[in-house]
Amino acid sequence: MSENDNNTFKIHFLPNDKTVEVKSGNTVLDAAHKANIYINSICGGDGICGKCKVILSSGNVDAPPTKLLSEDEAEKNYILACEARITSDLKILIPKETRLEGKKILLDQNEQHFMTWKAILDQAQFKHDPLVKKVCLKLEPPSMDDNVADHERLCQAIMMKQGVELNVMQTGYSILKKLPEVLRQNDWTVTVTLGHRGRTLEIVDVQPGDTSHLNYGIAIDIGTTTVVASLLEIETSKVVDSEAIYNTQMKFGEDYIQRIIYAMQNEALAEMQTAIVSDINNLISTLVKRNSINLEDITSILCAGNTTMHHFLLGLDPERIRKEPYIPTANFIPPIRAIQVGININSRGLLYTLPSVAAYVGADITSGAAAIRLDKEEMPSLFIDIGTNGEVVLGNKEWMVCCSASAGPAFEGSGVKHGMRAAKGAIEIMHITKDFEVSYSTIGNIPPRGICGSGLLDCIAEMLRSGIIDKSGNFQKGMKTDKLRKKDDEYEFVLVDKEETGIDSEIVITQADIANLVRSKGAIYAAVSILVESMGLSINEVHCVYLAGGFGNYLNVRNAITIGMLPDMPTSRIKFVGNTSLTGAKMALISEEAFEVVQNIASQMTYFDLMGNQKYMEEFMSANFLPHTDLDAFPSVQKELASQNTQLTGIN
Amino acid sequence: MSENDNNTFKIHFLPNDKTVEVKSGNTVLDAAHKANIYINSICGGDGICGKCKVILSSGNVDAPPTKLLSEDEAEKNYILACEARITSDLKILIPKETRLEGKKILLDQNEQHFMTWKAILDQAQFKHDPLVKKVCLKLEPPSMDDNVADHERLCQAIMMKQGVELNVMQTGYSILKKLPEVLRQNDWTVTVTLGHRGRTLEIVDVQPGDTSHLNYGIAIDIGTTTVVASLLEIETSKVVDSEAIYNTQMKFGEDYIQRIIYAMQNEALAEMQTAIVSDINNLISTLVKRNSINLEDITSILCAGNTTMHHFLLGLDPERIRKEPYIPTANFIPPIRAIQVGININSRGLLYTLPSVAAYVGADITSGAAAIRLDKEEMPSLFIDIGTNGEVVLGNKEWMVCCSASAGPAFEGSGVKHGMRAAKGAIEIMHITKDFEVSYSTIGNIPPRGICGSGLLDCIAEMLRSGIIDKSGNFQKGMKTDKLRKKDDEYEFVLVDKEETGIDSEIVITQADIANLVRSKGAIYAAVSILVESMGLSINEVHCVYLAGGFGNYLNVRNAITIGMLPDMPTSRIKFVGNTSLTGAKMALISEEAFEVVQNIASQMTYFDLMGNQKYMEEFMSANFLPHTDLDAFPSVQKELASQNTQLTGIN
Repeated sequence: MSENDNNTFKIHFLPNDKTVEVKSGNTVLDAAHKANIYINSICGGDGICGKCKVILSSGNVDAPPTKLLSEDEAEKNYILACEARITSDLKILIPKETRLEGKKILLDQNEQHFMTWKAILDQAQFKHDPLVKKVCLKLEPPSMDDNVADHERLCQAIMMKQGVELNVMQTGYSILKKLPEVLRQNDWTVTVTLGHRGRTLEIVDVQPGDTSHLNYGIAIDIGTTTVVASLLEIETSKVVDSEAIYNTQMKFGEDYIQRIIYAMQNEALAEMQTAIVSDINNLISTLVKRNSINLEDITSILCAGNTTMHHFLLGLDPERIRKEPYIPTANFIPPIRAIQVGININSRGLLYTLPSVAAYVGADITSGAAAIRLDKEEMPSLFIDIGTNGEVVLGNKEWMVCCSASAGPAFEGSGVKHGMRAAKGAIEIMHITKDFEVSYSTIGNIPPRGICGSGLLDCIAEMLRSGIIDKSGNFQKGMKTDKLRKKDDEYEFVLVDKEETGIDSEIVITQADIANLVRSKGAIYAAVSILVESMGLSINEVHCVYLAGGFGNYLNVRNAITIGMLPDMPTSRIKFVGNTSLTGAKMALISEEAFEVVQNIASQMTYFDLMGNQKYMEEFMSANFLPHTDLDAFPSVQKELASQNTQLTGIN
Repeated sequence: MSENDNNTFKIHFLPNDKTVEVKSGNTVLDAAHKANIYINSICGGDGICGKCKVILSSGNVDAPPTKLLSEDEAEKNYILACEARITSDLKILIPKETRLEGKKILLDQNEQHFMTWKAILDQAQFKHDPLVKKVCLKLEPPSMDDNVADHERLCQAIMMKQGVELNVMQTGYSILKKLPEVLRQNDWTVTVTLGHRGRTLEIVDVQPGDTSHLNYGIAIDIGTTTVVASLLEIETSKVVDSEAIYNTQMKFGEDYIQRIIYAMQNEALAEMQTAIVSDINNLISTLVKRNSINLEDITSILCAGNTTMHHFLLGLDPERIRKEPYIPTANFIPPIRAIQVGININSRGLLYTLPSVAAYVGADITSGAAAIRLDKEEMPSLFIDIGTNGEVVLGNKEWMVCCSASAGPAFEGSGVKHGMRAAKGAIEIMHITKDFEVSYSTIGNIPPRGICGSGLLDCIAEMLRSGIIDKSGNFQKGMKTDKLRKKDDEYEFVLVDKEETGIDSEIVITQADIANLVRSKGAIYAAVSILVESMGLSINEVHCVYLAGGFGNYLNVRNAITIGMLPDMPTSRIKFVGNTSLTGAKMALISEEAFEVVQNIASQMTYFDLMGNQKYMEEFMSANFLPHTDLDAFPSVQKELASQNTQLTGIN
C-alpha cells in the first residue's frame, strides 16, 4: 500500500493534540515516539502484547491481521500502533487504557502512609554526615605574624572544624583561582562546600559569607518504569518535596533487556542516556520551581537504580549485562560531576550512584537492604523487592545472599489486562464477598481505571477465599454468577461494571491474568525457598520479612501469605516498607555512614544465579499453586481456606 | 616628532631578519616584544638599566637624552630600545651583547661535572615509586563462577599487585566508558596508569597489552630567568635528555616583582601564563622529537619554581605576594591535569607542583633541600641557593629555618657590565696572576662573551689576592698596569682584550660591578649569620654547606670563602650541588616518598622575614667588605691575604 516511500505524512494525535510528520512506512508507534507520547507497549513494538491499541479516526494504515484485537475493537477502528504502517495523513485517538499517566506515580509512600521519614531515619541510626556538606568558617585574616597562604589557611580552618587531615583533601583548580577574592569578599567569612570522594574530601566550592543553610540534595530511584526524585534540605535532613515521572526509556522497551538490545542494535546508547538524564532534569526542574530553590544550591545528587539503569545513566556499555557470564562494566561507580552526564545542578555538584552487586541485583537492592538495616539484624531475615523483577535478599549482620527471580512485571500491572501502576485511579484495595460483590478503593478516590499491585494481590486472595478460583488459579466454572463469563474463548471475571469505571470499559480479570500473577508470586516464593535452603535454614528460622516495591500505598500482608507469595508466618513479622530504594538513597545523601553501609552490603552480598538452576525450576513448579503444592508449608492458609470452604458450602 | 599617531611603521630587526608592523609612538622594545625577540632589559623598560642598547641602522626615532650611552656609542647610533619611540620605518641591529642566547643555558650540570644522576639518586635513598606509574596486569577473564564486573576486576587486580585499598582509588569517567573494550582487546592483558593524588590513587588510563615500558615524565625547574626540563624514563629512573630555554616572561620584567606589577597593571595574568606554558611546551616538544617519543607516553610533569612562577603557571592571582603581609594564593597546589593549563602531554596526564614555604621561599628551595636530604642531616647544615634572589636554609633532621636575602641577580650576570648567565661563551673559571695576567676558560671553549657566576666569584677573589682591589672592593689606584683605567668617570679593569673576545668589545669589570657583587655576597652572608644566630648557634657549629645555583659548571668554593660569601670552614665541608631545584623535581617524579619529603619540608620550614629586620641590615653592612669587617670570623682568609700581601710586597 505504501506507494511512495518518499512521502511524508502528518499524524495528529488526540487527545494530546500533537502533530508530527513522519515518512511513509513508519509505524504509528514510531510516530508516537517522535511526538514524545507514551503508549503502553510492553513487548517493545514486536506486535506481541497487544497493549498499544489506538483508534484510527481518519486516514489509512497498512496493518497485518491480528488476534490481539477483538471483533468489537476491530469494528471500532482499533489498530495496534506498533504494527500499523502509515500510508496517509492520520488522525489517531489514544484511548484512556492505552495512555500512560504523565505524572504522579509513586510519591514518597513512607511519608504518606507508613512511618514518617524522621522516624525511619531515627530507626536506621545513621550519623548525620552528608556526602556533600556546607561549612561556614570565620578565618583569621593574615598578618605579618601569620602569613600562611590563602589555600592553606582555608585547609587548616577546615581541619580544625572537621578533624580531617590536610593531605586527604582535594581542591579544584577553579576554586584555587577564585580563592583570594572570595576569602576577602566578606571579611574572611566563607562557606566551603565539601564533598566525599572515596576516603578523600574535595573542596567543591567556596562562597563568600554564610550560605551553609542553602544546601540541597536530590535522591533518585531510577526504576525501569518510573523515576522518583526527592529534594532534601541537607542541613536539616528534611525531605522538602518529591516528584515522579515515567521513565522515558519505556518507549524503547518495557524491560531493560529489551532496552539493551535496542541500544546495541541502533547504536542508541547516547539516546538512552539522554532520555534518563532529561527525565532527571525535568524532575529537578519541577522540584526547584515548586519550592523556589536556586539550582546552584543543589550540590549533590544520588541515584539508586538497577545495574542497567546506572549503565544507561552513565553511558556505560551495557551489552554484557545480558550475555553470559553477565558482566557489568562497573558495579561501583566513582562519583563524578553531575554536569559530566548533563544533569543540571551546581556546576561542580557531585553525582553519586549507589553500588550494585551483579548484573541482575542492582543498587536499588543494596540501597533497600541498607534502608531497612538488614546489616544489623541478629536473626536471618528476608528482604523482598518486587518491581519489574523480584529480587530477594536473605541475611543478617554477618552475611547476605541474594538472587533475582524473573517474576515478571505482573504486580506492576504489565501482562495483566487491566493492570496498571500505582497511579491515580488504580484500585489498591479490593474485597470480594461470598456473594461475589466486589468493593474497592482507588488511589486518589476517583473512578477506577485499572488495578495496581496491591489490588491484584487482594484480588487473587479474595477470589481464592470466595471460591471464584481454585488452588490452581482456575475459575470455578460452576459458579452461580454472571460475573464469570467467557469472552473470545477465554474466561474472565467482571470486577467493576463499565458505568463505574473511569475508562471506556469494564474492569475484568482474565484466566490469563491470574496465571501471570500466580507465576509471578510463584517465582518470588521459589527464590525465597532456594535462598533459605541454600543457607541450610528452614522457612521457620526466618525471623522477619521486609516487602518493598511500588504495589500501592497499602499492602495486605495477610493476603500475600494467603496466595503463597510470602512464607506462612505471623503477620507481625512481615513489614511492607514501600520504596526502599529511594529511602536508602535519601539516607546515603545525608549520611556518609549510610553510603558506606551500602558499599559494604554490595561488597559482601553473595549473588546466586537462578538461571538454569534445576532446583529453582522445581521450586517454581511447586509454588505455581495457591498457596503451594505443599500445603503443610502454609498451615494458617490451610486452616483459613478450610473454614472458608465450610462457610461457602454452608451457604450453597 | 610623532606627526601621525595612526601611522603604522615597519621595523626590521637584524641579525634576526624579522619584520613587524607597529604603530607610531611605540618603543623599539615594544616592537622587539611583538617580534618575539629577546632583548636584555633588566629594569623592565623604565630607562634605568641601559641594557637594551641597539643600533639604529636606518630610520628615525624620538628618544630623550640619556647618560646610559657613552659618547662613542651615541656616535655609532646606539639607542636605548625602551626609550626610543618609533616615528618612521626602522632597521634595527641588535648587537651581540644585548642579545639573549636562544638556547643551551643550563644543562643538567650534575650529570656533566658532578656526581652522576644515579649516584645522587642512590645517595638520596628514596624508594622508587613514581607519582604516575604504569603497571601491566594479566586479568582472569570472567566466567559464570567469577562474574565480577569489569571495573571491580581491574581494581582488585591493582590491589593484589599494589597492596592499595580499593576505597582510596579513583577512576576517571572516560576510563570507565572505554573499559570493557580495552580489557577485551588484548585478551585481558592491560596496562594501567596510576597517578598519586594526595593519599589516593587515580586510574589515569588503561591501555590494551603491555605498555608499561612506555612511561615518561618531565621534571621542570622554572627559574625567573631560565626554564630547564629533563625527560625521565619512569620505569628505569633514567634521565633520557635535558633542555633549557630562557623564560619568555623576561620580556615583561627581569625579576618577578616587576612581572607581578606588569601582570596586574596590564591585566596580563593570562599572558604570563601563556608565556610560561608555551616555554614548557617548546621544551617538551624538543625533547620528544629529539628522542622519538610519543607525546601520549608522557604521563606526568612536575614543576619546581619559586612561588610567583607557580602562580603564573597556574594562573593564580599573584598580587598579594608583593604586598604586606605577602600572602600567596597557595603554597601547596594540588595536582591537576596538565591540559588544564594547556601543557601538551598525555591528555589525562597529571601536572604536579612542589610546595612553597612562603611568598619569597619557593618550591625551588624545598625541592633543593629534599634533593640534598637536609632532612636527614644529624648536625645543623646550610643550604644556600643563589639565583635571582639568594635563599638560605639552616637545619637538620629535626628543624629547618629559612630566609630570602635580596641578594640581587649579580651572580646571574645582571647588574654587571659583562655579566652573563652560565651559557656558551661565559667565562666560568678565572685566574689572575701577580702580574695581573688573566687566564680563563669558557663554557663551550669558545671566545668569551661575558662572565657567569662562578667566573665573577673567581674574579673578585683573584683581584683581592692579587691586590687589584682592596678589602672595600675598591681598585688600588696606584697599580702599575694599564689594564686599570678610567672610562666615562668610572674605573674599570680590562679582563680580556677586544681581539680575544667573541663580542665587539673588551670584557671589563667596573667599580660598580664589584660593588654589586660585594653587596650580593654580603646579603647572602648576612642572611646566613641571621639564621645561625636566630637558632642560638655559632658559625662553627654549622656542619656542612650546600651551595646551589646556576653559577657555572665548576665553582671554586675556596674563592667563595675568600670573598666572604660563605663562612670560613674547611672546604671539604662545602659542596657545590648545582641545580638542586631540578634534581629534587626529578626525584619527586620517580618517588612518591621524595614528593612527601618535599611536602614535609615545606610544612615544617620556619620562614624568617628579613625585610625591615634591623639586625639583618647591620649584618649586611658588616658583610659589605672582603671578606668581612670582622676579620676574626675569617681566620683562614686573614692568613691567606696576609701571606699574599707579603708576596706582593716582596715583588714590588
